[in-house]
Amino acid sequence: MAAPSEGALRRFSLAVDAMGGDHAPDSVLDGLDLAAERHPKAQFLLVGDEARLREGLKTRPRAAKLCVIRHAPDAIPGDMKPTVALRQGRNSSMRLAIDAVAKGEAAGVVSAGNTGALMALAKIVIKTMPEIGRPALAAITPSARGDVVMLDLGANIQCDARNLVEFAIMGDAFARAVLGLPNPTIGLLNVGSEELKGDDRVRQAAEVLREGHAGINFHGFVEGHDIAAGTVDVVVTDGFTGNVALKTGEGALKLMRDLLRQVFTSSIPARAGYLLARPALERLREWMDPRRYNGAILLGLNGVVVKSHGGTDATGFAHAMDVAMDMVTHGFTQNIREGLSRLATHAPPMTGSEADPSAVTAQQD
Amino acid sequence: MAAPSEGALRRFSLAVDAMGGDHAPDSVLDGLDLAAERHPKAQFLLVGDEARLREGLKTRPRAAKLCVIRHAPDAIPGDMKPTVALRQGRNSSMRLAIDAVAKGEAAGVVSAGNTGALMALAKIVIKTMPEIGRPALAAITPSARGDVVMLDLGANIQCDARNLVEFAIMGDAFARAVLGLPNPTIGLLNVGSEELKGDDRVRQAAEVLREGHAGINFHGFVEGHDIAAGTVDVVVTDGFTGNVALKTGEGALKLMRDLLRQVFTSSIPARAGYLLARPALERLREWMDPRRYNGAILLGLNGVVVKSHGGTDATGFAHAMDVAMDMVTHGFTQNIREGLSRLATHAPPMTGSEADPSAVTAQQD
Repeated sequence: MAAPSEGALRRFSLAVDAMGGDHAPDSVLDGLDLAAERHPKAQFLLVGDEARLREGLKTRPRAAKLCVIRHAPDAIPGDMKPTVALRQGRNSSMRLAIDAVAKGEAAGVVSAGNTGALMALAKIVIKTMPEIGRPALAAITPSARGDVVMLDLGANIQCDARNLVEFAIMGDAFARAVLGLPNPTIGLLNVGSEELKGDDRVRQAAEVLREGHAGINFHGFVEGHDIAAGTVDVVVTDGFTGNVALKTGEGALKLMRDLLRQVFTSSIPARAGYLLARPALERLREWMDPRRYNGAILLGLNGVVVKSHGGTDATGFAHAMDVAMDMVTHGFTQNIREGLSRLATHAPPMTGSEADPSAVTAQQD
Repeated sequence: MAAPSEGALRRFSLAVDAMGGDHAPDSVLDGLDLAAERHPKAQFLLVGDEARLREGLKTRPRAAKLCVIRHAPDAIPGDMKPTVALRQGRNSSMRLAIDAVAKGEAAGVVSAGNTGALMALAKIVIKTMPEIGRPALAAITPSARGDVVMLDLGANIQCDARNLVEFAIMGDAFARAVLGLPNPTIGLLNVGSEELKGDDRVRQAAEVLREGHAGINFHGFVEGHDIAAGTVDVVVTDGFTGNVALKTGEGALKLMRDLLRQVFTSSIPARAGYLLARPALERLREWMDPRRYNGAILLGLNGVVVKSHGGTDATGFAHAMDVAMDMVTHGFTQNIREGLSRLATHAPPMTGSEADPSAVTAQQD
């Protein structure tokens, strides 16, 4: 299948897998209804059980105005292995939504379904950009100084220097498109910030990025605590470390939320104190609402692919839609191409990277 | 230099580098004074500038009773490279304290000085246990279900399956000695909890640990969020991932502390709310006090080596002393030997590990 021809066939901003996720299709339709308000000019291809979707749209008139339904008789279960999904999922809502991107009918796809299946199907059907060795999984995470992009989060368990440089270019393009930053700073995650720290892989990648041919604003090495501190706008690392770091940070924040809840219910004065401080605490709660950070993004394919968390609600799904819409409307793919062509012209050769068919090994759910 | 002969020469529980750390020797002496109260039968060899230490002990009678001073004319600066410290630090307080362990005069050493120098000197002078491929750096971190041991935290940037199995055995022995757990649960950090996740390295290590020859209570794979959740008592990983994960978790907790401070000073009602909830919030603050978790422990040498954070105060230094005393008095080294000998008898051969002279690459400060 060829890369989508720009413009020719494209009718839809996004194809939406209506049957993926724990509460599908209701949470998806509610999310679409919220997203429709924010993107009134978008056109969505809604893929799933036609009868249920038609019924569901009746009560969501905003979404109904922007949606065209495409029937899919099947849905991929959350626990199906990617290899099985590839063989047996040809008529699934996820597959048909991905097919729409590959055919150029839609610029991107959003799904709250099976992560491993989505990644495998998207890579095989939509295909990796010719300039990219391996796609990467990215997400947005909160910090003291605003949102931070992290990648890779598990698409590639082992990475070489070349992969890390490509991740930096993709992260830069993503931060421009989705965070709206004109010149995002990029940091390479390491065990120390001095030039000699780490292994050959990170040192070699840093050397290429430092030379500036990639045209990105490279800050240098950053450490684990720099993620929450917001030292840089984009944190680049391999999929193993990134997956562990993202979940470690999320786990620490969740622990604090749980402990605060205990504190404020531990005595009558503490309850009263909570009531007094509540407006300020509410702002804190909103700020760290995991739904605001919903959406793992597979970067480096010939189209936009966003994975919403399977258990999220309408607000979370609408945020994943926002991320996908930002990428579609702000020329994300074009930004990557420009960065990579600069690199190809100027940078010295690095240890090469081969596409790794077994690379889909991590899940976000 | 031979391994210390048990008992023969040993006079001191611990040798203490009195000149290491940002506020040495005062913070060290104050810490010793606190530790002396908790360990009234201990004997400490205090190594440093004799005149200053003698003067300092005059005002700290509890510490003075348990200390013998050994003069060291030099101190290793915080920014000295490990290779330089090896050549030029022969008369430094750190080196002479380490020498005391190697000679069997003390069972362990505590220092708040230069981390890289301490690790390099300790490995070369005290030496790695013959049964161990590579020493590992461990620390204790808070979780929802009590303290959790993590290792490696940066002593080994690249690890193979054999290293990870050894780290599991050392982590088990450490949790028994220091956390007082009779049968600690051990988890191997990965990008997912299913058996097929991750790379060959973690899968092979998990297979050996699952077979049970190491005699430890292996839980299986754990993910980043399991650290703060306290899913297991000991989290095992390579030095790159462990260093990043520990600092990421610390960074997230620090961000929450900073944001809470902002919340409670943002308005007059919020201030009043803070005052009402203060007793409960104080317990939370104590619980996550970084000084309670001070001390990185180099495991796998022929003696106990504990690194206190360079910027800590007396309370933090005393906690590092507590950890070292627990290891000395609860047979930590013997526990490791037993685990490794079980493994040698039963386990199939794994990809071997060679001692790596460049392994000291990460610092904790």
